[in-house]
Amino acid sequence: MNNTDNFKYGGREAPIGVFDSGVGGLTVAREIMRNLPSEKIVYFGDTARLPYGNKSKETIIRYSRQIVRFLIKQDVKAIVIACNTASAFALDAVSREFDIPVIGVIHAGAEVAASATKNHRIGVIGTLGTIGSGIHEHYLHILDPEIMVIGKACPLFVPLVEEGWLDDPVTETVARRYLDPLKEKDIDTLILGCTHYPLLRKLIGRVMGSHVQLVNPAYETALQLKKLLGERNMLSTSAGTEEFPYRFFVSDLADEFRKFANSILPYDVEMTQKVNLEEKEDE
Amino acid sequence: MNNTDNFKYGGREAPIGVFDSGVGGLTVAREIMRNLPSEKIVYFGDTARLPYGNKSKETIIRYSRQIVRFLIKQDVKAIVIACNTASAFALDAVSREFDIPVIGVIHAGAEVAASATKNHRIGVIGTLGTIGSGIHEHYLHILDPEIMVIGKACPLFVPLVEEGWLDDPVTETVARRYLDPLKEKDIDTLILGCTHYPLLRKLIGRVMGSHVQLVNPAYETALQLKKLLGERNMLSTSAGTEEFPYRFFVSDLADEFRKFANSILPYDVEMTQKVNLEEKEDE
Repeated sequence: MNNTDNFKYGGREAPIGVFDSGVGGLTVAREIMRNLPSEKIVYFGDTARLPYGNKSKETIIRYSRQIVRFLIKQDVKAIVIACNTASAFALDAVSREFDIPVIGVIHAGAEVAASATKNHRIGVIGTLGTIGSGIHEHYLHILDPEIMVIGKACPLFVPLVEEGWLDDPVTETVARRYLDPLKEKDIDTLILGCTHYPLLRKLIGRVMGSHVQLVNPAYETALQLKKLLGERNMLSTSAGTEEFPYRFFVSDLADEFRKFANSILPYDVEMTQKVNLEEKEDE
Repeated sequence: MNNTDNFKYGGREAPIGVFDSGVGGLTVAREIMRNLPSEKIVYFGDTARLPYGNKSKETIIRYSRQIVRFLIKQDVKAIVIACNTASAFALDAVSREFDIPVIGVIHAGAEVAASATKNHRIGVIGTLGTIGSGIHEHYLHILDPEIMVIGKACPLFVPLVEEGWLDDPVTETVARRYLDPLKEKDIDTLILGCTHYPLLRKLIGRVMGSHVQLVNPAYETALQLKKLLGERNMLSTSAGTEEFPYRFFVSDLADEFRKFANSILPYDVEMTQKVNLEEKEDE
């Protein structure tokens, strides 16, 4: 299947499309805002269908394809998959089906971790879906087959972050239980393989100890995007012509999204539009 | 809108339709199996779209309507909404739109709690969606306007149950943090307003103390269903004619569903069918 002939993609002044299953990808949007301040962003959070972490590959590909089509209709020039599960399951499929540049958080994180490790022992934490997919190991082994990858699913981290218990004794106890097995494996690098986890960075760093380097794929993705746009001569040159160059779309519950967005972004997000991607309504 | 003319509902030997956003409603199916052992059951778990607890009323009604249509096509004679969020948001709408008998876990729990309380102070715990909806208070005040209802959302309980940490120091710490404010309000009755919570019954009982009566709506729903079918002369009389009278459908990831089902049901669930309710595919 190839749908690309139906679309024209945005030029260099067009926005970046960023999507996630919900609010977590805002940590990636935030890094793009910080590191590419001239770029416009169209963000889509699939809040009606989150979380992606416990859904099948087939379902995630179907959802991602719908979202990519929506973003292309918003005239974006490149797409960032800010969701680890969607990067793991759908990056290859959507890259094949659409000829717009698509980058995913997993590959960016893997590249930096592979350069950072000294002892070739890298830990990865994420949702059940991400860890079960083995996708970090897949990319890390392409970069260096000698690397040993130790994955650990941490299903309670996302609800703990969403509860706001970021630096809390309960979260620390849970973190120790999840992370102690990784410490015993003598890793020197740990990939924060879920978009919510950078918000637990301080606590995770304390539990792991200073000899373990934490890799934040949100930050690395922003740098990779900058490099890609630079190479293609696609970096925006129209800085500051729009008052608020960021647009936010969700598939459900705009209010809760806005609350979380305002808690982590340096801007006041007032407008969030709700859209329904299921193409045929059953009313 | 009235779709009822399009359907014929099952007769007295037809199965009961039970649905939930995922696996939690199996605690309700389990109580129906125990208390109405002659009845057949068709269970639907909307695992592709869970959780319902953080979605809007509009979305939950749309999903519930799709599922009710699916169950009616399976020739059920009555429908049990085993999901608290769907009961809160969609029971009235689907009862109005379809003329098949529909009962929900919330009303059953509220009736029993209203009879049980001596001091007219009832606590309710559940997801953000259920507690935010105020639906228990709504039903309790119809039964007795003097009752004071104190709701408390416990968003970490479902992921803790799904992690299997049922009797665990972390879960007990979380439970104390959630439940201490309810204890201070001097309630004598507590409704377990989420289908996963009966699996934490022992721990919640220990935290609340023996003077607080716990109401398990799963059990009360099974009793209410028995009464309803009895009154309408619709109780099955064909006990034991089918080897395995329970069918399970999910919208995603049958394996994980089966694992949870086998951990809480007294039967070995081998067959789970996956169905897609989104009526038009976008391939």
